[in-house]
Amino acid sequence: MRMLINVPETVVADALRGMAAAHPGLAVDVEHRVVMRRDAPVEGKVALVSGGGSGHEPLHGGFVGPGMLAAACPGEVFTSPVPDQMVRAAAAVDSGAGVLFVVKNYTGDVLNFEMAAELAEDEGIQVAKVLVDDDVAVTDSLYTAGRRGTGATLFVEKIAGAAAEEGQPLERVEAIARQVNASSRSFGVALSACTTPAKGSPTFDLPPGELELGIGIHGEPGRERRAMMTSREIADFAVDAVLDDLRPDGPVLALVNGMGATPLLELYGFNAEVQRVLAERGVPVARTLVGNYVTSLDMAGCSVTLCRLDEELLRLWDAPVETPALRWGR
Amino acid sequence: MRMLINVPETVVADALRGMAAAHPGLAVDVEHRVVMRRDAPVEGKVALVSGGGSGHEPLHGGFVGPGMLAAACPGEVFTSPVPDQMVRAAAAVDSGAGVLFVVKNYTGDVLNFEMAAELAEDEGIQVAKVLVDDDVAVTDSLYTAGRRGTGATLFVEKIAGAAAEEGQPLERVEAIARQVNASSRSFGVALSACTTPAKGSPTFDLPPGELELGIGIHGEPGRERRAMMTSREIADFAVDAVLDDLRPDGPVLALVNGMGATPLLELYGFNAEVQRVLAERGVPVARTLVGNYVTSLDMAGCSVTLCRLDEELLRLWDAPVETPALRWGR
Repeated sequence: MRMLINVPETVVADALRGMAAAHPGLAVDVEHRVVMRRDAPVEGKVALVSGGGSGHEPLHGGFVGPGMLAAACPGEVFTSPVPDQMVRAAAAVDSGAGVLFVVKNYTGDVLNFEMAAELAEDEGIQVAKVLVDDDVAVTDSLYTAGRRGTGATLFVEKIAGAAAEEGQPLERVEAIARQVNASSRSFGVALSACTTPAKGSPTFDLPPGELELGIGIHGEPGRERRAMMTSREIADFAVDAVLDDLRPDGPVLALVNGMGATPLLELYGFNAEVQRVLAERGVPVARTLVGNYVTSLDMAGCSVTLCRLDEELLRLWDAPVETPALRWGR
Repeated sequence: MRMLINVPETVVADALRGMAAAHPGLAVDVEHRVVMRRDAPVEGKVALVSGGGSGHEPLHGGFVGPGMLAAACPGEVFTSPVPDQMVRAAAAVDSGAGVLFVVKNYTGDVLNFEMAAELAEDEGIQVAKVLVDDDVAVTDSLYTAGRRGTGATLFVEKIAGAAAEEGQPLERVEAIARQVNASSRSFGVALSACTTPAKGSPTFDLPPGELELGIGIHGEPGRERRAMMTSREIADFAVDAVLDDLRPDGPVLALVNGMGATPLLELYGFNAEVQRVLAERGVPVARTLVGNYVTSLDMAGCSVTLCRLDEELLRLWDAPVETPALRWGR
């Protein structure tokens, strides 16, 4: 264990207290585990609510703020949040314009957000849901029926969040979120396993000198294990896996994401290879984001997410956003 | 080796190509290893130029942009850049208002920036220099005479960069940079060593279950090695080490910095402990930044930097900045 923690039991609550101290724009309910925009509910605007297991930071709490999420519900590490958190978040941020739940396709998240939607509707809150399932590595796993939800979550939250910020109605915000998910695909690679505080040892066994192609967000097994590859080879494999499924015929938005422990120096170098492959395949790249955004604790590795853009999606991607992890102006 | 690279020899050039692709606001001279604001030189404004060994990203290239650095010169991993890079950068970004070199106190950096200043002055460029030496862990080491330069580099670059962006003259920008450095202290802790691409094995030996208190930016040895401590105990030790030396009598700016491989979840939890210690010692915190900003490749660990603020420094800290790693608006 080389963790910067007190005890495993308080890791999430400690982090929420630390977030609250660092970000005065957030209102953090540490007891009930809800991170909200301080100015929520925002009159006349749809509110996006997401959540999932902790350990993927800055996802989702780091994406709360004007232009993105109204609230996030963190569960225990790698464990779904409970419906009570989601209902509480929805009630706190709903202005009357309705709430969109952004749900990664992970069985626990799906069930709990479904139950929360029913409970919130019983309280008179209008709720829509979008399921994010962008991971092309595997369909159906021990944890999820269908494709897993990974990097596209950031795209859905940013782009649909911008639509909500513009004052678009719930059905339109939901449609945009669905379009973004349907237009996005991801592929991830692990160079090491990660270690959860509760377990204290790596979540799976990955011998030095090997890598796992097609890893899930919790280190779920992927397509195959191989001897270590170069950055160039990994980019070829990952980008082609995405393109085979996505088949873009115009510009894309690219996320070159670190899993947590891979240095930014390496991620930028990997981005150079990703851009090379895309250029070789004739795919124009409109925007690129490089960094640690959808992580798995201290896992070394990376993922590539591409999203087919149209003019509206690009405009919404470029719209101002002000969250702890993603901020830009006009 | 669990690195996302091609070969060690091209790591820095690969990363620069990847930065160029991701950030259209930067002009990156990959061959000569200079990262510049695309709009440089900016008429009538002082230009800040920094640089140092690679492996500390986003420092310094990620801090190039309006409101911060005009240019950065990356050396090889953990190796000082050469004077030619600095002279080239200075010539490219000088508007005639002069250049401020921001130099971390590391012997190679100090010598090379000194030589570069002489060469640039021979070319008619007015150059001032500020030395950053904020690390209270050790004075004099194998690599540096005096205190080492670490987290305060970010504060100097942000705050003096804002003064330059306002159009303040070189001598004033230099004086502010010196004030920020003199008002800042840091203390770092390693929970693991880091691995450079060229060496391929950890830079020092840190057995599991132990930590190094007072680590330098390259993993230089610190004050002492101990059995693993809790986040609470580390915060007590690090904050007290800083406060003993800094003795603030008013509000401070706090950087809770990750060394690279420590998850953001843990950094936020550590921030809660840092804020607790500061509250117990009666030190008000005006602003807090939490994240991986001054890193050591894949090292696990953290550092705390505090800066005594006056009204002008706080105003300059809050001023807009638009760089890859640090951005905020009015």
